Amino acid sequence: MILLLGSTGYVGSAIRRHLEARAIPFHSLSLRDNHRDARDVLLEAVRRLKPQFLICAAGFTGKPNVDASEGQKALCIEANIGLPAKIGEVCASEKIPWGHVSSGCIYTGSRPDGSGFTEEDPPNFDFRHNNCSFYSGTKALAEEVLRDMPNLYLWRLRIPFSHVDNPRNYLSKLMRYARLVDVRNSISNLEDFARITHDCWAQRIPFGIYNVTNPGSVTTRQVVGLLQKAGLGPKNYEFFESVEAFHRLATCTPRANCVMDSSKLLRAGIRLPSVEESLGDCLRRWQPA
Amino acid sequence: MILLLGSTGYVGSAIRRHLEARAIPFHSLSLRDNHRDARDVLLEAVRRLKPQFLICAAGFTGKPNVDASEGQKALCIEANIGLPAKIGEVCASEKIPWGHVSSGCIYTGSRPDGSGFTEEDPPNFDFRHNNCSFYSGTKALAEEVLRDMPNLYLWRLRIPFSHVDNPRNYLSKLMRYARLVDVRNSISNLEDFARITHDCWAQRIPFGIYNVTNPGSVTTRQVVGLLQKAGLGPKNYEFFESVEAFHRLATCTPRANCVMDSSKLLRAGIRLPSVEESLGDCLRRWQPA
Repeated sequence: MILLLGSTGYVGSAIRRHLEARAIPFHSLSLRDNHRDARDVLLEAVRRLKPQFLICAAGFTGKPNVDASEGQKALCIEANIGLPAKIGEVCASEKIPWGHVSSGCIYTGSRPDGSGFTEEDPPNFDFRHNNCSFYSGTKALAEEVLRDMPNLYLWRLRIPFSHVDNPRNYLSKLMRYARLVDVRNSISNLEDFARITHDCWAQRIPFGIYNVTNPGSVTTRQVVGLLQKAGLGPKNYEFFESVEAFHRLATCTPRANCVMDSSKLLRAGIRLPSVEESLGDCLRRWQPA
Repeated sequence: MILLLGSTGYVGSAIRRHLEARAIPFHSLSLRDNHRDARDVLLEAVRRLKPQFLICAAGFTGKPNVDASEGQKALCIEANIGLPAKIGEVCASEKIPWGHVSSGCIYTGSRPDGSGFTEEDPPNFDFRHNNCSFYSGTKALAEEVLRDMPNLYLWRLRIPFSHVDNPRNYLSKLMRYARLVDVRNSISNLEDFARITHDCWAQRIPFGIYNVTNPGSVTTRQVVGLLQKAGLGPKNYEFFESVEAFHRLATCTPRANCVMDSSKLLRAGIRLPSVEESLGDCLRRWQPA
């Protein structure tokens, strides 16, 4: 049995749907409790339910977007570092293997040769580089705190997209924004990501950090081209002149844009469709809200 | 009535003794609870006890020294950021003014002209400068999380010393170490610091950040000279050739050494004896363990 934390969030819901679809036994648990410490809530649950694996999709990204994390720093630290640290403590003491949803937003740009960052590359968009959103800072610091914990997968998600319309879906966002900024990113198909959280465990691949992005990268203009070809979204888009103009005019906190290398996952035996394949598939199957 | 958190620690004990000596009504509270969330323990206590002021001296520095914080990152974040953030949340909702023990170890060196850092200077020994111990990183990040909270004093302590022998006392440390490193620091008399936590509130000085170091600064060699004059500690000391040699040979994590300016406290009407006066007084009244 799998214990799933954070199953009401955007990523957690996708994992829940995946487990349901495959009839994989799981139990959803919220650690939010008005009176008890999260550690205690979890300890009681794992002793009662005896899960073989735990998936944590709980976290704080800020709503409607990451700008909100700047005004909720305490919450951001508690949800993104404090909570997973407590989960790791309980999982270590109860010897439960687990996985946690980390983020690729701890990188900016690409390697000097244009290739994607691997799991060996230290973050370059974090508190230590003093160039990041508070959210990215906490996600990078969480990896620093968690990375030496035993029996742990850290799955780095990066800009989730899906065939189902949703305010958190990258494709939906592109369809709704009036002006866009042209940047290159590696991105993660939400359903692929959800599947992989279970596959890692089912296939017993080695614990550690994994970039879980669809191979390749895309620019905003490329994705907009695909949307227009599929007859989705506005007919005409405006683009900010530059990333600088976008940050100056439209955001409060810096955004990471980065290219990631997900070949470690492939080498471990888990295949992801390329970003082009996956985008094409989503647009063919597009489900409006 | 004052609510005191962390009264069993080195700093908290000094505050407790000060309040006892002045017959100031207070209540010691531990937020450690095997089952309940610290927020809930505190909320219940403040509603029952109705304190006028809260002093938080709880935190994690690492034992025997700050090197230990490198191996206990989760605990360090929870104790130094998570816990005070929760306290701030409860104090804000219950409208209780409070003060928290912060640290001067978020600075290194001095201003370019050799003068001390003021409360206006941003930290320069923190995650954002990527040059710090994990402990200093968490203390700086805690200030970032706490500084906009209402009705809050952040008291920056820096290398506590006292007339009472104790493994945490800077003077005791100097007497026990075989080799020393000659560096310049501003330092805090523990009993002065304890007194000031209450005085800030009693005199209703404006809330905010205060450097609570005795005016001036001293080098290790100067303090050793005073110890030898007082007939305390070893007759002969060895010194590391340089700070670099000290870090290479004797420590795991970088140490902050810094000069601080405590004139904001003086301008608010609270006087501290100079570091020379205070050191002289401690050595005259020295109480061996």
